[in-house]
Amino acid sequence: MNHGAGGETMQDFLSKHIVSHLPRMSSDVPLSSLDDSAVVDGIVFTTDGHTVKPLFFPGGDIGSLSVAGTVNDISVMGARPLALSCALILEEGLDINVVDRVMGSIGRTSEMCGVPVVTGDTKVVESGAVDNMVVVTSGIGKRSEYLDHNISVASAHRKVDSRWLTDDNVRDGDAIIVSGTLGDHGVSLLSFREGYGFESAVQSDVAPLNGLIENVLKVGGAVAMKDPTRGGLANTLNEWSSKSGVGMMLEERDIPLKDAVVNACDLLGIDPLSIGNEGKVVIACVPGSAEDILKVLRSHPLGKDASIIGYAASGTKRVTMRTSVGGKRIIEPPIGDPVPRIC
Amino acid sequence: MNHGAGGETMQDFLSKHIVSHLPRMSSDVPLSSLDDSAVVDGIVFTTDGHTVKPLFFPGGDIGSLSVAGTVNDISVMGARPLALSCALILEEGLDINVVDRVMGSIGRTSEMCGVPVVTGDTKVVESGAVDNMVVVTSGIGKRSEYLDHNISVASAHRKVDSRWLTDDNVRDGDAIIVSGTLGDHGVSLLSFREGYGFESAVQSDVAPLNGLIENVLKVGGAVAMKDPTRGGLANTLNEWSSKSGVGMMLEERDIPLKDAVVNACDLLGIDPLSIGNEGKVVIACVPGSAEDILKVLRSHPLGKDASIIGYAASGTKRVTMRTSVGGKRIIEPPIGDPVPRIC
Repeated sequence: MNHGAGGETMQDFLSKHIVSHLPRMSSDVPLSSLDDSAVVDGIVFTTDGHTVKPLFFPGGDIGSLSVAGTVNDISVMGARPLALSCALILEEGLDINVVDRVMGSIGRTSEMCGVPVVTGDTKVVESGAVDNMVVVTSGIGKRSEYLDHNISVASAHRKVDSRWLTDDNVRDGDAIIVSGTLGDHGVSLLSFREGYGFESAVQSDVAPLNGLIENVLKVGGAVAMKDPTRGGLANTLNEWSSKSGVGMMLEERDIPLKDAVVNACDLLGIDPLSIGNEGKVVIACVPGSAEDILKVLRSHPLGKDASIIGYAASGTKRVTMRTSVGGKRIIEPPIGDPVPRIC
Repeated sequence: MNHGAGGETMQDFLSKHIVSHLPRMSSDVPLSSLDDSAVVDGIVFTTDGHTVKPLFFPGGDIGSLSVAGTVNDISVMGARPLALSCALILEEGLDINVVDRVMGSIGRTSEMCGVPVVTGDTKVVESGAVDNMVVVTSGIGKRSEYLDHNISVASAHRKVDSRWLTDDNVRDGDAIIVSGTLGDHGVSLLSFREGYGFESAVQSDVAPLNGLIENVLKVGGAVAMKDPTRGGLANTLNEWSSKSGVGMMLEERDIPLKDAVVNACDLLGIDPLSIGNEGKVVIACVPGSAEDILKVLRSHPLGKDASIIGYAASGTKRVTMRTSVGGKRIIEPPIGDPVPRIC
C-alpha cells in the first residue's frame, strides 16, 4: 500500500517501475520531474485517480475531491485551469442515486471554480471488480496571465530559474507559507470511516484553490507552490528540499493546526504534518513578498488561517522544526501517508 | 453492465445521469455532443478508462490498449496527439512484474506512435478493491496541420459545416470506409478469456492509428471519423446517423470480416458488427475522395484490408445493409457491446 501512499517509498516505486519504462521527452516540466503537472507545448496537463473510501464524508465527497484535486494541481504550477475530463469506473449494481449525487457534486464544484468538465468516459464492471466507484480526473490549463508579473516581482529580489512554480525553485532565505490548518481532511475522513467521533469537530477542507492562488500571483513573489495532499506538509517540504537542494527551518508554533486534529493525532499516534490535505496550498516566496502574500491569503475565506511557518535555510539539507518546547526535530519524508484511501 | 457498454442504453444513461449534472459550456466540440474528444480553446482533450480482462491477451495488453485508445480518440477528430497522461489504480499484492510488463508496453506503444506519456498518478488500494489494475489515460492534441487541407478538398464537393471531423458532419452521398477487418479484438479477447480456442486464428487489432489517419488527411476529403470501439461499427454508424440526421446503406459483401470472426460469432450468437475494435477507423468522406482515401489506406500496413462499405443515403433515417443473399437488414444501435470488459 505504501507504493501508492505519496511518500518516499512511492517516489522510489514510481522512478523504478513507472517512469523508467517511458520514453524521455524535452519539456518545460517533464514527467521525470514528478511535479504536480507537466507542461507540454504551453499546455499544463495533469491527472489524478480518486479511490477515497467512503464516497461521501464530512465536508465533501469523491466528486468535489476529484474536481478540487485536479484544479489545484494545475493551479499550483502558476496556471489557469481551462477544462477537466472525468473517467468513471462503476461497480455493477451501484445505486443510481449514488451516481447522481457524485455527478451533482462534480457539477457544483466545477461551476463554483469556473472549470468545466468537457469530456469523459464511463465503464461499468461486474460486482466485486471495483469498490463502488473510481473517479479519474485530468485537467488542462494555460499559463496564468499573472504568472509573468509574479515572477518579475520575485526576480527583483533574486534570480529565478524556472518559468513555472516548480519544486526545484526554492532558494536559501525563501519564506514558507501555508494557507491554513493542516491535517483536517485526513483526520476527518479517518475518524468518520472508523467511527472515532472526531469528525464532529473537524471536517475535510476539500476546496478548489484556483481563485486563492490567482490572488497570490497578482501580488507576486511566489517561486514554488504545492498542494500538500498524500504525505502532507512533510512530503511537500521534503520534495522541495530534495529537488531544490536546500534545507528548511520551521517554527512549530507557527504551523496552524486545529486542536481537534492535534488531539486526534495524539490518540491515534499519527503525525498531522504527514496527513493529506485537499484544500490547502504551501507557498515558497522571496522573503520581501511574504507579508504581502500572507495578507492577501488571509483576506480570502479559504486562506483565513494562513501562516508563515519558516524559511529555506542553506545551513542544512534537511527539513528541521524548532519545537514549541525549545528543541529541534527533523521532519523526515514520510514513508507514506498514514491514512490509506483518503483521496 | 449495459450502462457502460457503449450502446444505446449507455447513451441514455450518460445523458440522464452524467451530462445533465454538468454546467454547459460553449465550445467547438462540447461535452454534450458526446464525440470522441472535446475541443477547448484549440486543445483537443479526451479520456478513457481501461478495465480489460485479462490484462494480457493475444495481440496486446492493457498498456498498448490504453495508449492506442486515447491516441485514436484524439486522431479521429482531425488532431495530432501531443501527449498522454496515465493514472494507475493498482490492487495491493499485484505482482510487480505485471506492473513492469504493462508499463513496458505503454512505453513501447508510446514510442512507436510518437506520443509521450508526460504526467501520471498511481494509487494502490487494498486487495479486493479493484480487479488487478485499472489504467486511465487522457490525451491532449492540437489541430492537425493537414486538417484544413483535408476540409478544403471536401469543400470542393459540398459545403462542410464542422471545422473538425465530428459525428454530425455526414451528408447524403458520403462514402463510408472502414480501414480493415471488424470484430477481431472482441472475438479474440472473448475467446481467449473463455477458452473457446478461436484466438489462434484471430488476434486483437489494437494499434495507434495516428500515422494512418494523418495519411488520409493529406489526401483530403474526409468529413467524419470514428474508431469503432464499444458497440462496434453498428454503434458508430448509428451515432453518425442520429447526430447527422442521415440514413446509410451498406453492402454486406464489402464489409471486411475474417472467416474466423464470422465462424466464432455464428457459434456464439453475437453480431460481429456490434463488437468493439481497437485498431480500426471508420471514415465518412465526400464521394469524389473515396477511391483516393481507399488507396492511401491500403498502402499502409494497418489499412491493407480497407474497404468502401456503403454510402450515406437520405432516403432513410436508419442504417440499412443489403445482405449477401439479396435481402435488407436494419443495423440497429446495439443495446451494448455483447462482450463485457474488452477495453
